[in-house]
Amino acid sequence: MGEQVDKAQILVASNRGPVSFSVDDDGSLSFRRGGGGLVSGLSSVAAEIDTLWVCAALSDADRKAASSAPDGRLDRAGFDLGGARVRMLDIPEQTFANAYTSVANSTLWFVHHMLYDTPNKPLFDAAFRAEWEDYRAYNASFAEALVTGAAEGAKAAVQDYHLALVPRMMRGRRPDLRIAHFSHTPWAPPEYFGMLPADIGRELLEGMLGADHVGFLSRRWADAFLKCCETFLRADVNWDHRTVDHGGRIVRTGVHGLGADAEGLRERAEQEDVAERRATLRELVGGRRLVLRVDRTELSKNIVRGLAAYRELLRTRPEWRGRVTHLAFAYPSRGDVPEYRAYTESVRRIAEEINEEFATPEWTPLILEVNDDYPRSLASYQLADVLVVNPIRDGMNLVAKEGPVLSHDGCAVVLSTEAGAADDMGGAAVMVNPYDVSETAEALHTALSMPDDERRARCERLVEASVALPPQRWFTDQLRALG
Amino acid sequence: MGEQVDKAQILVASNRGPVSFSVDDDGSLSFRRGGGGLVSGLSSVAAEIDTLWVCAALSDADRKAASSAPDGRLDRAGFDLGGARVRMLDIPEQTFANAYTSVANSTLWFVHHMLYDTPNKPLFDAAFRAEWEDYRAYNASFAEALVTGAAEGAKAAVQDYHLALVPRMMRGRRPDLRIAHFSHTPWAPPEYFGMLPADIGRELLEGMLGADHVGFLSRRWADAFLKCCETFLRADVNWDHRTVDHGGRIVRTGVHGLGADAEGLRERAEQEDVAERRATLRELVGGRRLVLRVDRTELSKNIVRGLAAYRELLRTRPEWRGRVTHLAFAYPSRGDVPEYRAYTESVRRIAEEINEEFATPEWTPLILEVNDDYPRSLASYQLADVLVVNPIRDGMNLVAKEGPVLSHDGCAVVLSTEAGAADDMGGAAVMVNPYDVSETAEALHTALSMPDDERRARCERLVEASVALPPQRWFTDQLRALG
Repeated sequence: MGEQVDKAQILVASNRGPVSFSVDDDGSLSFRRGGGGLVSGLSSVAAEIDTLWVCAALSDADRKAASSAPDGRLDRAGFDLGGARVRMLDIPEQTFANAYTSVANSTLWFVHHMLYDTPNKPLFDAAFRAEWEDYRAYNASFAEALVTGAAEGAKAAVQDYHLALVPRMMRGRRPDLRIAHFSHTPWAPPEYFGMLPADIGRELLEGMLGADHVGFLSRRWADAFLKCCETFLRADVNWDHRTVDHGGRIVRTGVHGLGADAEGLRERAEQEDVAERRATLRELVGGRRLVLRVDRTELSKNIVRGLAAYRELLRTRPEWRGRVTHLAFAYPSRGDVPEYRAYTESVRRIAEEINEEFATPEWTPLILEVNDDYPRSLASYQLADVLVVNPIRDGMNLVAKEGPVLSHDGCAVVLSTEAGAADDMGGAAVMVNPYDVSETAEALHTALSMPDDERRARCERLVEASVALPPQRWFTDQLRALG
Repeated sequence: MGEQVDKAQILVASNRGPVSFSVDDDGSLSFRRGGGGLVSGLSSVAAEIDTLWVCAALSDADRKAASSAPDGRLDRAGFDLGGARVRMLDIPEQTFANAYTSVANSTLWFVHHMLYDTPNKPLFDAAFRAEWEDYRAYNASFAEALVTGAAEGAKAAVQDYHLALVPRMMRGRRPDLRIAHFSHTPWAPPEYFGMLPADIGRELLEGMLGADHVGFLSRRWADAFLKCCETFLRADVNWDHRTVDHGGRIVRTGVHGLGADAEGLRERAEQEDVAERRATLRELVGGRRLVLRVDRTELSKNIVRGLAAYRELLRTRPEWRGRVTHLAFAYPSRGDVPEYRAYTESVRRIAEEINEEFATPEWTPLILEVNDDYPRSLASYQLADVLVVNPIRDGMNLVAKEGPVLSHDGCAVVLSTEAGAADDMGGAAVMVNPYDVSETAEALHTALSMPDDERRARCERLVEASVALPPQRWFTDQLRALG
């Protein structure tokens, strides 16, 4: 295929791509497809239409694959990607670490989720400035790959806070392109976003405003972004149309509330490994009510307060002792960030405390599992009576949507007001302030006490809201928003 | 004096009163007058007009004094308070500790200053609910003392976040009174205020809206309060007049930017003990430029990042090595709250690191003093070339105002955008984002490099802004705002 014909009409850019590699014992590379809303949303589209997906090599095996492929084009290196064209960028390791771990995950993620221990962090010094240079370089690598891979008038969908600078970098070189940026996180209010160095805050906002359309998972996050544009760029915001007038261009914002991939989930959940897990879990839980939570061990997921609420339930409502089992699946995340290691320890500690306080020879009140087992998660969704989703702040939270979809007998959802999922699901879930452990304990009681018919009726409404915008449509909506 | 004639036309309520007691070696009580803007603002007024000041006993000696005075009325117990009438409330020790330390200082203070390590704190559980009951009881004690001490149609000025519930409690019993509430802290944006349990957040807002006039130190804090009323009470806010329509009443908000007590300061600074300190400091500093900071060791004061900025200055601008001395006076505060003890340790640690990195036999780059010495602070204001005031969030910050007032040769002020003082002083100070250590290092360089005439001219403007609303007028303005 010649250079010209190979240019794509649709481009996707995201830090994590649709595949990841590992090195087998014999030294050869093998790969597996990733999960998550973005991958399932884009994969189906990518295979069908003229799409190039640009992503970063995340591991040594990825680097090996990327560097062995011509121009990083995995599809040209003999990997069967089901028709998708993927360019994996072999970004220098230190540049990647600074951009991804230090800037994106330890700074931007913390800002948008309001996770800082503010008296002590953040601290923007000369070392941070050096990391920021690498974030720029990492963004520039993506922009370069996108502009060289884009056909005349192509559409590009740039994903998330890792790539905030890409739209503006692209526009400078390719004004013919139509560019969308989509944020999978919340957006910080101005009082919090303003912690960033002023020039860096402006660079992030202006970077995103290089796009034609800036998308979010919730109206709340879109509005917070607009407020930041008003506050820090003195940009003219039209609040009726929710557009920003900046640099002589009108940039639109939009809300695309990513839903569950019901079809894919149900298909996966019918497999044998899920049935096996289900049998094991059933035995474990016995005839008791099952309260479930499934999270990455992520600072924003609020696992400790969730477990504290369960403890308060058992203290204040002793009638539940012996009658309920709490399964908490908290699989490891970001072990390279010290706050996450400390948080994982806190989760373990309170779990032990709860069992020390309440366990009997016949009953283990809480079962905490800190390893990842996807079919087990799906099986637990099928069985749960109550699903707890109480993040202190969350772009959307797909667990809240996937749980009801797979539930066999209708589950109640205890849901944080601070999750994007609350926008659509608030009416049918039992809502909680994630900082309010007493309220969450009461919500657990309410959810556990709910009559079967009410729980099932609510669950139906939860499912309806959950599947309203499946991943594929979520993605095509982003492209459609580009006109 | 009979009960009737003893009722006051003006009432003041604040946690800390104008005097504090200590027990002498012979077991007798002695007292001293307190400092701070409120005391100096009110004392002069209290002595002149028909005023009753209600405050809490803060120590065992205070309790002894309060319980020995008839109805807690110190002025009736033979203490010479210069004509002021003071009722000191002997609130039960545990009630006081829960209200003051747990709710006011470890919760409301943290909310308004945005100080929480959010993944871990706050956590509102059954224990907090019990503390909240004590906060209510503590507020009720003040309300009771105020309504029983108030003459028909009297004016009451209720001070600060400790007493947020008092206005509503008073209004229920004495609709004839005119009530003002004044906040000496910032006010949290809704995204942060919303961490509080929903009913408690509403109770605080409605408590304050029991007043006729709600005052703040900065327009920013007043606007944040109004936004919280809109968000959490769905109250009707008139943004042109900045009033709240709630419960059938119109509550006005106002801004009274407390200034320095120039006259009192200058008088105090002329005393011999200040001159002695000045001589000692001069010798200590030698002919070097003096960079000064004076703070309580308070999480919001941002001492660690301030010292980190000084370190970055010495690293990136080696020309200042040996030519500047940084005096950091950080006197102890809130040792009963664990976060404060840890923070004090962090301050000590970075101070040691700086001296280890840069000290020479002839030069100590940083002198950290963690004890309180008021005349020494005044002497240091007189001598400083650069005053650093970089809080992450601060209602006003009077150090920024008092320093220039006492400066002998005109000082430059490096000032945080997040201090209320920035409203009036921003134009003449060197402004910094308190999280941005690199920017603060550059601001130190700018301030140190400023030509003498520019520094003096700016300092004159700083003084002008600092003395615009002296404490006495600040207080009478609050009363006038009641009509």
